Amino acid sequence: MADEVILLDFWPSPFGMRVRIALAEKSVKYEYRDEDLRNKSPLLLQMNPIHKKIPVLIHNGRPVCESLVAVQYVDEAWNDKSPLLPSDPYQRAQARFWADFIYDIGKKTWATKGEELEAAKKEFIDTLKLLEVELGNKPYFGGETIGYVDVVLIPFYCWFYAYETCGNFSIEPECPVLIAWAKRCMQKESISESLPDQQKVYEFVLMMRKNLGIE
Amino acid sequence: MADEVILLDFWPSPFGMRVRIALAEKSVKYEYRDEDLRNKSPLLLQMNPIHKKIPVLIHNGRPVCESLVAVQYVDEAWNDKSPLLPSDPYQRAQARFWADFIYDIGKKTWATKGEELEAAKKEFIDTLKLLEVELGNKPYFGGETIGYVDVVLIPFYCWFYAYETCGNFSIEPECPVLIAWAKRCMQKESISESLPDQQKVYEFVLMMRKNLGIE
Repeated sequence: MADEVILLDFWPSPFGMRVRIALAEKSVKYEYRDEDLRNKSPLLLQMNPIHKKIPVLIHNGRPVCESLVAVQYVDEAWNDKSPLLPSDPYQRAQARFWADFIYDIGKKTWATKGEELEAAKKEFIDTLKLLEVELGNKPYFGGETIGYVDVVLIPFYCWFYAYETCGNFSIEPECPVLIAWAKRCMQKESISESLPDQQKVYEFVLMMRKNLGIE
Repeated sequence: MADEVILLDFWPSPFGMRVRIALAEKSVKYEYRDEDLRNKSPLLLQMNPIHKKIPVLIHNGRPVCESLVAVQYVDEAWNDKSPLLPSDPYQRAQARFWADFIYDIGKKTWATKGEELEAAKKEFIDTLKLLEVELGNKPYFGGETIGYVDVVLIPFYCWFYAYETCGNFSIEPECPVLIAWAKRCMQKESISESLPDQQKVYEFVLMMRKNLGIE
């Protein structure tokens, strides 16, 4: 029996994109269902009764919730190709540490203004600089190939244009190593085809700012 | 060469206790160092420069930070006995989901007052009731033996007396299944010897409340 794989997601979600990339890396075919978050589907509420959030990966009827849990699940359930976590326990621990560290970076660069925005931009750049140190001279966080931390971080790249335009700042002069890494990632189909266009994300962010009363 | 294992910890920390229990389950000998969090050791600042927090597990000179990362590391680095995570990918994902869900439960039952306290007590009991559903009829979250979720949750049990006394409520009448589970866990030496006395935790909490101006 072929696997039935469904992803409940919302197209601008960096958390959903993580799962899309992981599935693409493993060449897993799946049905993508975009949720209306103001009117969540009965299936979403049933499959993630605790958090009621996307993404939810449904594999043969069984739900896996939370993006980091889902990416690790994809790595373990389809372990025949493209390992995302390293095999060495210490390297695995380091990858998990940095994946947890990333969380919802950049949000405040479009969701705040004034002094709070200035602090948010500094915090965001500081975060990227720490990640640049962790990346070092490697082509990817995973080493020679993309790994767990790459999958977890790269989705935010398609939000960078919105961050920069809303926050009136430039990321590349501050973090050239990270931007070079992101461009390298975007050359991979598993990533570029899993991420929406940055202009489309920007338009979504403008709508969100209007709803929040920030203009 | 024998492993050198050091744990930088702070005795009332439920997060540190998780790592202590995991090490005890694996029969790993280690040096315990209690940190003064108002005057952190140079070693702590050097080993966890990002978060500057305990617990930090140092294995042959290399640090592992963040309690959930450290417990998984202990499970993978000493994989010859007492597996904490299940081997099935779906069961592993479920265990990770619940471990992430637990976070810092109960804190607001001693760190707030008035209306906020009433809401905190309800939220805490609701959280435990969800965990009771997940536990079901199993003796432990891990099944017949203790596992990842047991290790992550049980440390909070030695805080329950402080929660109840500060919050003026009783947990057992609301969550008898969870309390029965906790008492079962406490019969295991790896757990009971890793947890401080609940009276000592209560005295620590009283001091913290004084510092916060709650009496």
